[in-house]
Amino acid sequence: MSTTKPRAGKLIGVGVGPGDPELMTLKALRVLHEADVIAHFAKAGHPSHSRATIERHLRASVIELPLAYPVTTELPKCSAAYRDALGDFYDRAAAEVAHHLEAGRAVAVICEGDPLFYGSYMHLHARLAARFATEIVAGVTGMSGCWSAAGMPIAQGDDVFTVLPATLPEGELVRRLSEADAAVVMKVGRHLPKLRRALERSGRLARAIYVERGTMAEEKAIPLSAKPDNDAPYFAVVLVPGWQERPGAKLGAEL
Amino acid sequence: MSTTKPRAGKLIGVGVGPGDPELMTLKALRVLHEADVIAHFAKAGHPSHSRATIERHLRASVIELPLAYPVTTELPKCSAAYRDALGDFYDRAAAEVAHHLEAGRAVAVICEGDPLFYGSYMHLHARLAARFATEIVAGVTGMSGCWSAAGMPIAQGDDVFTVLPATLPEGELVRRLSEADAAVVMKVGRHLPKLRRALERSGRLARAIYVERGTMAEEKAIPLSAKPDNDAPYFAVVLVPGWQERPGAKLGAEL
Repeated sequence: MSTTKPRAGKLIGVGVGPGDPELMTLKALRVLHEADVIAHFAKAGHPSHSRATIERHLRASVIELPLAYPVTTELPKCSAAYRDALGDFYDRAAAEVAHHLEAGRAVAVICEGDPLFYGSYMHLHARLAARFATEIVAGVTGMSGCWSAAGMPIAQGDDVFTVLPATLPEGELVRRLSEADAAVVMKVGRHLPKLRRALERSGRLARAIYVERGTMAEEKAIPLSAKPDNDAPYFAVVLVPGWQERPGAKLGAEL
Repeated sequence: MSTTKPRAGKLIGVGVGPGDPELMTLKALRVLHEADVIAHFAKAGHPSHSRATIERHLRASVIELPLAYPVTTELPKCSAAYRDALGDFYDRAAAEVAHHLEAGRAVAVICEGDPLFYGSYMHLHARLAARFATEIVAGVTGMSGCWSAAGMPIAQGDDVFTVLPATLPEGELVRRLSEADAAVVMKVGRHLPKLRRALERSGRLARAIYVERGTMAEEKAIPLSAKPDNDAPYFAVVLVPGWQERPGAKLGAEL
């Protein structure tokens, strides 16, 4: 819960949805029109996905604050050095945002999906929420965009639904996939061969659906068993729909 | 994936978000303006929550199609008779919607949250998607509304995130809560005493947050350990935030 601190600015985490600019909320649009500063994360040298989503709504007078992730290709992602480099980056980003907040400005940090669900905004929130008023504008998650694009009911009734990172060891993936009625596996990328094996071993391969860029122009959704290669970008997801007793359900038959 | 069937109508599942009318998407707004028929589920004799969310956007000329759940207070919810009564109701509702689709109309079925995530729309989709063109407009889920209202980062990095119904047996809740980094427990209602015990036994009670009516005017979010009673409506949720290594994280300290 936010506390209002008089005479200081406001930090607003704004979910802009899964990619289709129309899947932004009315509230996100209003907040973007009212904000003094619009901040966005991007890899150094790459365009910001969240900025592209809201570009048509940027006012000429708004202050833009790009927050560029350091390029750390020389460091393995699981290393302490990589985590330290990222931690330092978030510290610096929070200081830049705080500078505007201290000047009394409303800073909207735009986020793909939902700000508090696996989003970079959370690193700013954790560093600044004790010092400044905050507000969260919930957004449509990337995974909602994916199952909507695939037209695939994901969970119903008393289903247990689980989100898993594909980075887990194969045995862990098998165990957790076997236990969930419905699942979404994120961060697929180079883990796809391992994930295929885990889906096979847990009896979930026949109903697994591979989705890239849900709701975007280049959207792709196919049964994973029909995907001929293991090429997958980092942000691809695999859906394992639940609700197996639904009328007319046949494993993988909907696509 | 939907296939276009010429000369027939279109079934559109439209997520209207968690309750705050501003958390509807731009796409939902457009689809509501374009639809010939707007259908909504509600308990017989009760106002429809999803209709209340979009009421200000209803055109005078639109056809409204209320779909009233049967009142089955005499049947226990876990009984086969209750399931049959509901199944019959969804069959009849699908037939009513099909009547409009066959006349070439676009029928928007408005849904709280996201249409394919634990939503009643799925019962129509499962019955009609093979015969008619369909489209899904993803929405902000109720649970996103809840953690946003609480200002509580829910999951980050490689967290495993799980959605559990409070209807599960206590031992199952303990086991699954212990295994998840982050969790949302739904359908709390009369299961709150059991859920409290399961959270205690799994070591999660200190960070559990109780939320009612996230994003709505009567919104309430408090640490569960500070809630003095076990009164909870059916739609209350309990959040168990993950990302335990976040900067400044103290169990339950954010609220």
